[in-house]
Amino acid sequence: MAEDFPVISAEDDAWEAVTQLAENRLPGLVVADPHGKPLSILPTSQVVRILVPSYVQDDPSLAGVLSESMADRVADKLRGKKVKALIPDDLPELAVVNDDDTIVEVAAIMARLRCPLAVVMRGDVPVGVITASRLLQLALTPPT
Amino acid sequence: MAEDFPVISAEDDAWEAVTQLAENRLPGLVVADPHGKPLSILPTSQVVRILVPSYVQDDPSLAGVLSESMADRVADKLRGKKVKALIPDDLPELAVVNDDDTIVEVAAIMARLRCPLAVVMRGDVPVGVITASRLLQLALTPPT
Repeated sequence: MAEDFPVISAEDDAWEAVTQLAENRLPGLVVADPHGKPLSILPTSQVVRILVPSYVQDDPSLAGVLSESMADRVADKLRGKKVKALIPDDLPELAVVNDDDTIVEVAAIMARLRCPLAVVMRGDVPVGVITASRLLQLALTPPT
Repeated sequence: MAEDFPVISAEDDAWEAVTQLAENRLPGLVVADPHGKPLSILPTSQVVRILVPSYVQDDPSLAGVLSESMADRVADKLRGKKVKALIPDDLPELAVVNDDDTIVEVAAIMARLRCPLAVVMRGDVPVGVITASRLLQLALTPPT
């Protein structure tokens, strides 16, 4: 049930990756090591954290005092950075499933981790990505 | 910075709403009352909860013992239901922003609530929806 989905490397250009994510309206980014093993599965709701300076993440009440031009400067910081700069320090549990898991198992892990995409593994080998939209489509389409 | 985004009513058909969500690869559903006031803002990662029977939500280890055909039956339960059946009982904090909030403020609330879409209000009146993809696009596109 996996689908075509871009998997990026931690060494790729961060600006490029985030632009692709935004333009293609992807639900998130899958960052993998050179063997394709997932290092980070970032929902788009977490990628937007790059727009939030760390002192605002610590104290959200400060967000209101920032002007739009400061947000621009935050975005500019992405230029020249690598994708690994997007990965949070506290590595959260990855939305990883097995290729023989059921639709219910995949839905349960997405819901629990609030992550709209999961990497599908066959043993130790990643074989694809499945999105929450695709999962709903599979579940709602009657078998033909 | 709001954008075109379908807002549905709690009285709409649930099957229809979820099918639209899946087919259009939307990041989530905005459910509103007859005045357009948001009742629930559901990321797609939470909409997939409908595929997970409640006893599996309570004990995830049970997911593996369900066959795909049981998942099908779960999906079938959607037929004839209204959208309000999708709204969780414990109403989580809504990703609602003001139309004069900055990009940083919107990004901060999306990241905190792990919600890839926010409803934009002007005072008490909803004026649109903004998605995390759109927010990134706005932040990354240099002003022309």
